[in-house]
Amino acid sequence: MSKQNIYDNEVFFNGYQKIRENKVNANILFEKPALFSLLPDLKDKSILDLGCGYGENCKEFIKMGASNVTGIDISVKMLEIAQKENSALNIKYLNIPMEDINNLNKKYDVIVSSLALHYVQDFEGVCKNVYNLLQKNGLFIFSQENPLNTCFTTGERWTRDENGKKLYANISNYSVDGKRCSKWFVEDVIKYHRTFSSIMNTLINSGFTIEKLLEPYPTEEIIQKYPDYKDNMHKPDFLLIKAAKK
Amino acid sequence: MSKQNIYDNEVFFNGYQKIRENKVNANILFEKPALFSLLPDLKDKSILDLGCGYGENCKEFIKMGASNVTGIDISVKMLEIAQKENSALNIKYLNIPMEDINNLNKKYDVIVSSLALHYVQDFEGVCKNVYNLLQKNGLFIFSQENPLNTCFTTGERWTRDENGKKLYANISNYSVDGKRCSKWFVEDVIKYHRTFSSIMNTLINSGFTIEKLLEPYPTEEIIQKYPDYKDNMHKPDFLLIKAAKK
Repeated sequence: MSKQNIYDNEVFFNGYQKIRENKVNANILFEKPALFSLLPDLKDKSILDLGCGYGENCKEFIKMGASNVTGIDISVKMLEIAQKENSALNIKYLNIPMEDINNLNKKYDVIVSSLALHYVQDFEGVCKNVYNLLQKNGLFIFSQENPLNTCFTTGERWTRDENGKKLYANISNYSVDGKRCSKWFVEDVIKYHRTFSSIMNTLINSGFTIEKLLEPYPTEEIIQKYPDYKDNMHKPDFLLIKAAKK
Repeated sequence: MSKQNIYDNEVFFNGYQKIRENKVNANILFEKPALFSLLPDLKDKSILDLGCGYGENCKEFIKMGASNVTGIDISVKMLEIAQKENSALNIKYLNIPMEDINNLNKKYDVIVSSLALHYVQDFEGVCKNVYNLLQKNGLFIFSQENPLNTCFTTGERWTRDENGKKLYANISNYSVDGKRCSKWFVEDVIKYHRTFSSIMNTLINSGFTIEKLLEPYPTEEIIQKYPDYKDNMHKPDFLLIKAAKK
């Protein structure tokens, strides 16, 4: 199956760098706090981060007491920044796609992935490999785009009133799992849509016990501070899952 | 908390009876086959059916070998029909709301519910009671309206083109759990919206292990036969869950 390395595309990478420079975005407001809320005590734990990107989370895991962190990413450009900005003695960055983690010769207590799994075609393969790489009672904790976001195929994502105000999120082809092309800095960024039930069943069939789900949405406080995020009540951006190898 | 008995409303009941007379509807095409696909071998099993309505499923469970079936419903009118059309020696119909099943003095192997839980405000209470009423390794198998259906608050449910063709399902207030009023035969039929993650977390926190989810959608064969159901690819009508007491 194809492995997409869009982050090594120059135009995409430059665009992505720009939005990551913003102090306020949906990742910082919703995804990151939700992901970290699912983590167990990391003291002396061995961590694998799938699609680690800039390595910010890897560095954070070390600060939280992890004994060692392996960050893998398909993108050389992302790992260059990780090495420069978020290196540490007990962090190892490896340039391998997450479809190939079966080659890692080590077991982990926690395997984490932040907003990378929706780029992966073979979710089932990844889940099976993650299960094999985990210690008993190990945890798989990941975020991805919410299925209400990835389902979309063509046309407008929102129904708006005459002033352009968002009224409804437009959902189409939710029940059709598979490839979606969208524009994000460049044409044809490929993501893979999977329904809630597909994601759950794939995890369960790989041996996992589902422990918790999150679809973070803006608190009153966030809406007061950043009124634009009120629209996130209509459709959540993210889905986060904590699954255990029992 | 309030317990809704809309099925004993004369206008609602008559309207509901009419659509149930149709040989083809979404329940028959999608919900019923999905629900039955989740059932284990019922031979010699003790079954409780929450919101049993007409009792058609209760009768079916007996045919499948169940040793005894208890069907409960809040509606007297529905149970009158159940008694008339679907009675059997080892089926007992009881007029109690599913919020009060803690009064049942018996343990069950399988607790089933078809399209009733979205009427219940206290889902958490029902889940806890169901857990207590199940034997060890017992199963809780239920269908409900899909959260993409219940989330809706006001306005149009579909964005249509100039010819009235459905383009997108309009999703609003998905992240806001709680009461929704809708019109179905009568004004103010009350349903309770819960996000996917709320439903999952409530089951997990009640002690259940999630075993399988289904969001049935039309097969090619169904679309060929009943082209109107193609729109169901955009937004599933139902969510079905199989959860176990381990």
